[in-house]
Amino acid sequence: MQETAGVTLADVQRPIVGQLDQVTAALRDMVAADFPLIQEVNGHLLQMKGKLFRPTLLLLANAASGAREARAIRLAAVIELIHLATLVHDDSVDHSVLRRGMPTVNALFSHQVSVIMGDYLYSRAVTELVRMDEVEPLRVLSRVTNEMTIGEMRQLAQYDALAFREEDYEVTIRSKTATLLSAACETGALRTEPPVRAALRAYGAALGMAFQVTDDLLDYTEEQAVTGKPSGNDLKEHKVTLPLIAALRHVGDADRRAVQELFATPQPTDDQVGRVVTLVARHGGLEYARERAAGYAGEAERALQSLAPSPARDALAGAIAYAVERRR
Amino acid sequence: MQETAGVTLADVQRPIVGQLDQVTAALRDMVAADFPLIQEVNGHLLQMKGKLFRPTLLLLANAASGAREARAIRLAAVIELIHLATLVHDDSVDHSVLRRGMPTVNALFSHQVSVIMGDYLYSRAVTELVRMDEVEPLRVLSRVTNEMTIGEMRQLAQYDALAFREEDYEVTIRSKTATLLSAACETGALRTEPPVRAALRAYGAALGMAFQVTDDLLDYTEEQAVTGKPSGNDLKEHKVTLPLIAALRHVGDADRRAVQELFATPQPTDDQVGRVVTLVARHGGLEYARERAAGYAGEAERALQSLAPSPARDALAGAIAYAVERRR
Repeated sequence: MQETAGVTLADVQRPIVGQLDQVTAALRDMVAADFPLIQEVNGHLLQMKGKLFRPTLLLLANAASGAREARAIRLAAVIELIHLATLVHDDSVDHSVLRRGMPTVNALFSHQVSVIMGDYLYSRAVTELVRMDEVEPLRVLSRVTNEMTIGEMRQLAQYDALAFREEDYEVTIRSKTATLLSAACETGALRTEPPVRAALRAYGAALGMAFQVTDDLLDYTEEQAVTGKPSGNDLKEHKVTLPLIAALRHVGDADRRAVQELFATPQPTDDQVGRVVTLVARHGGLEYARERAAGYAGEAERALQSLAPSPARDALAGAIAYAVERRR
Repeated sequence: MQETAGVTLADVQRPIVGQLDQVTAALRDMVAADFPLIQEVNGHLLQMKGKLFRPTLLLLANAASGAREARAIRLAAVIELIHLATLVHDDSVDHSVLRRGMPTVNALFSHQVSVIMGDYLYSRAVTELVRMDEVEPLRVLSRVTNEMTIGEMRQLAQYDALAFREEDYEVTIRSKTATLLSAACETGALRTEPPVRAALRAYGAALGMAFQVTDDLLDYTEEQAVTGKPSGNDLKEHKVTLPLIAALRHVGDADRRAVQELFATPQPTDDQVGRVVTLVARHGGLEYARERAAGYAGEAERALQSLAPSPARDALAGAIAYAVERRR
């Protein structure tokens, strides 16, 4: 992988930054409702609207494929809408109270509101796609949405956390994260020749894997402002991710017992979490996850090589560096 | 309204009964997944699959419109899939433990499973519609799904139950029940001339209103096997429906206080419920609701008159009698 240290999201978004404002406006437009409670929830969601990473990928893929379609703005807004719908339901399923430092819909309103609001957002997304009078974006995005629900179900069915193998992890993050990033890129390239569409789909999938592995790594490495220690949130929630899976291959009996104890404790203490974070590092779990992220990043780079050079292609390359080098 | 006492669902389904078996097979096919937990939940859902009322309407509308399309089987299965998805999320939102005498998904599995399973079923429905390569069924069904979520939200936002007016009730049951029945009829008639499509849509909407008003009435009238008394379930759950709204227009202060007390009690006693059930009857609430149901039934009958006579049209007329005369 080429060295592109210090790529920020703003760098990645530069070629399409004007369009992103239009995406935000379209999004606002799409979720508008003449019903007060929906307005209220939407207001909250638009505030916590993140970095528009998926719309960014869609717009860059569209530009890199040489198409620059007017409808790309609306498609980009729709993909963010689908993303928001899945976040709202994920938070409801996980009983999460915070997302990006803001209260979740289920925490601020209620479990009921979050179930219905997710349905509202998703059905709005479908309605918008139908309005475009073309089946192809719907084909891509409905398949992906269905795959994401299967991924969620797979995660729920995981009773014995420590039996979770690397291939289970891969299947899970592919369906939870990579498919939507891949669909964002593919949806931006629906009107180009099949090889370009395939290249961008493959790029998005590999980027998504690199992105999620890095995300899971940050949970073990990134020091929190308040505590100065890694958050270990996944461990607290009994989520098994790649660093732990890799480390478990090399641990001795005492360390394995420490891990088992943490997973047998409904609400693990900071000490338990700290101990497991340390042993994961000591047994090469972080290093292994970094290598895998770099492997996916290389895959994403190679997928881009078939595209004609353009500022948008460069920005997509930058997105790879951003995905694996970011600190949060 | 014509006198058609004693119409059973089997009578209504007679012209299309062979197709209904195919619908069940198609439904089974559509929800198939190679993932054990999804299979398990689906097995449960297929067991509690109800009377296939919506597929029945779609198939009859298709036959009555003179089309008899092969794809009607799949469309009928899709509409049941959407109905199942909304039931699963409704039960999750209401924390219901029983549906048609069987445990709900949230009770038997978990809240998490029911949120994801509803998403799974709905995204499968969209995927199936996309596979038909035609936007029109998607246009009808995505609009309806979105309307249903708005209706659900409207119900959640209802803080002051006793301020619920008849027009609020109408808007709510229209979006919760009538739109999907209307969409079932319309979806069966997408390839016919616009006036036939419009007539069947109007028929389905009026039928849905008659059906739901009757449903709400049965809660006040139908004696339960065990207790020999009306269930009063809606009152227990603080749901305000037409019989109560109508009765409240005529009650004196003492009776109004009894109603207010019930709504101020988190878990109303059987005595409280029994007293309100009685006063609703005494103040004409049941009679008024019966009249309204009959009014909607008449509307549905009139909508059918523009269609050419056929056994399917007769069955649709029978469905009206079934909707307003059934005992459960």
